[in-house]
Amino acid sequence: MSTSYLPEFVGNSVLDTIGLVIPGIDSTLREQMKLPSHISSLGILSSRTGAAGQICAIDEAIKNTSTEIISIDLPRDTKGWGGHGNYIVVGGRDVSDCRRAIEIALELTRKHAGEVYISSAGHLEFAYSASASYALNMAFGTPVGKSFGFMAGSPAAIGLVMADNALKASSVELVKYMTPSVGTSHSNEIIICFCGDAEACKTAVLRGREVGLELLKTMSDDEPQGPSTPYLKSVFEHLLR
Amino acid sequence: MSTSYLPEFVGNSVLDTIGLVIPGIDSTLREQMKLPSHISSLGILSSRTGAAGQICAIDEAIKNTSTEIISIDLPRDTKGWGGHGNYIVVGGRDVSDCRRAIEIALELTRKHAGEVYISSAGHLEFAYSASASYALNMAFGTPVGKSFGFMAGSPAAIGLVMADNALKASSVELVKYMTPSVGTSHSNEIIICFCGDAEACKTAVLRGREVGLELLKTMSDDEPQGPSTPYLKSVFEHLLR
Amino acid sequence: MSTSYLPEFVGNSVLDTIGLVIPGIDSTLREQMKLPSHISSLGILSSRTGAAGQICAIDEAIKNTSTEIISIDLPRDTKGWGGHGNYIVVGGRDVSDCRRAIEIALELTRKHAGEVYISSAGHLEFAYSASASYALNMAFGTPVGKSFGFMAGSPAAIGLVMADNALKASSVELVKYMTPSVGTSHSNEIIICFCGDAEACKTAVLRGREVGLELLKTMSDDEPQGPSTPYLKSVFEHLLR
Repeated sequence: MSTSYLPEFVGNSVLDTIGLVIPGIDSTLREQMKLPSHISSLGILSSRTGAAGQICAIDEAIKNTSTEIISIDLPRDTKGWGGHGNYIVVGGRDVSDCRRAIEIALELTRKHAGEVYISSAGHLEFAYSASASYALNMAFGTPVGKSFGFMAGSPAAIGLVMADNALKASSVELVKYMTPSVGTSHSNEIIICFCGDAEACKTAVLRGREVGLELLKTMSDDEPQGPSTPYLKSVFEHLLR
Repeated sequence: MSTSYLPEFVGNSVLDTIGLVIPGIDSTLREQMKLPSHISSLGILSSRTGAAGQICAIDEAIKNTSTEIISIDLPRDTKGWGGHGNYIVVGGRDVSDCRRAIEIALELTRKHAGEVYISSAGHLEFAYSASASYALNMAFGTPVGKSFGFMAGSPAAIGLVMADNALKASSVELVKYMTPSVGTSHSNEIIICFCGDAEACKTAVLRGREVGLELLKTMSDDEPQGPSTPYLKSVFEHLLR
Repeated sequence: MSTSYLPEFVGNSVLDTIGLVIPGIDSTLREQMKLPSHISSLGILSSRTGAAGQICAIDEAIKNTSTEIISIDLPRDTKGWGGHGNYIVVGGRDVSDCRRAIEIALELTRKHAGEVYISSAGHLEFAYSASASYALNMAFGTPVGKSFGFMAGSPAAIGLVMADNALKASSVELVKYMTPSVGTSHSNEIIICFCGDAEACKTAVLRGREVGLELLKTMSDDEPQGPSTPYLKSVFEHLLR
């Protein structure tokens, strides 16, 4: 890895993530991207692997800076695995705000990557936010200000059984249900997003995680694991009686 | 690989396939999945690699149990290769029927995987059913009760030459023609499905297989091969004069 | 690799490319492919990796033979990476014309592959044509006869910064802007195509290439590289002052 002295370069993170800024986007691109007129600078985060984790990271970043969410794309990627990567654009009046937002998002991407589990057979992704903001709202339609939970399982059959267990374990409200044909970019996943009170969302996510890990482990000899430390672990221990 | 004591777990098979059941699906998911009211339990099969083979496996399974086909999705997968995985849901009144259907499908997945050929350059998939039922009908529009043949070749150019040779070799009726842009999930394949009398379908499949294997072998040093034994082999020898 | 004595076989090239011909396509396939009535033979090129390079190769091939472009598909492929493969069909009255077109395209695929750069983190693709013909026009809507430039960067964030730099460096006219959600097959890329005078297109391509390579190098320790020699290199040295 080399560093870059390009003014656009902000940094890198796990899951093949790069963070960049554009101070004063070219006018032809501005038109193609349908940018609002008050936006002059952009911050961009994109990864080969992961979706909800990086969207949560951006969600926190825009809460803490004078930036707003512009677009969220979920390419079919994961470097040969069955899920998504991401391509997320935020905007602001000032390039320093955009740079700060992307710095925060790169740091939080590392944290959220703790809840991505990859084995030689498939993958799982979990995310939890105590209070969803506009990025999570744009991506999944979840209400702003409410607790938010996300789970994806691949191969897709695992995702459905995770979803069923999670929804039976807790009285959360389903906000999005995604399949290989609907809502995804043809990924091999069943994904659910839900909102509700914090305790209910946590219970649902943790139940899905328990079931998903057990089922994925039946498929290969290697342990499902991600590039950083599971961050729901402490929560997990606390909630299990 | 660990086993699972979850009530949902049925088993695993080749091509990263997992089989699961859900006894009494959650009511919110039921609504999202648009399940008919008489269905209370589900059986689910999904794989990272393969499409027609697993659909044929499910097709046999529903013929032999009190279950029916609910949905068939073809995610863009194959673990970095140019084709599909699958996500198939069957339904029944009784979870034991669904479990039996998935057990049959897991076993037959192994058999059908004999006609998946993967090299470092591309892949081929073939399938043949003496009498198509409702799963093959839902997936490809082939008439119920008629013999059915399927062939996919990747990179796509190979698939087209396979199709041309197969259709010239035998008077089958084309029921589906799929390309990277139409009918697939943007896979790098040309796929044809056809019906007709048994002999005609077999001749077409075997001619496509002969041409596809020869062309795929020109692309890399390794032999195209799958996870189990080609099951059309005996048929093949019998038909070649 | 074995050679093939099938009459359809033309040859292989880098990036898992195969070239084939079909003399007198089956009438059912002819209908499905919506072939014009004066076309009786086909030439087919398809690859697991690459898009613009092979389209440029075909573009030259049809200029130099009595063939015409029939269809261009961009499957989501690149063997586990974040981009496209390709599936391109040309047609002619004579199979010898089609064979010649595919021979030319296979040879030029090797040349154009010099501007595909792949690292363990992502990939870049560049293409330049001094005078676009009907294949480039069909694929990207670029005007026939004008100079044409193409650049794709993955992960997508890199592609956007490449595009911004290229468009600021040179007064080219943007003809296509593609994102993971619009215009691609859900690839993890931002792609731009542009036309203009030769010097302007070259300047834009070279600026995008310089920025893209620097950013991609920040993501992994291995050097981004392709299967053949960069062909814009001499142009590059000449233009840099």
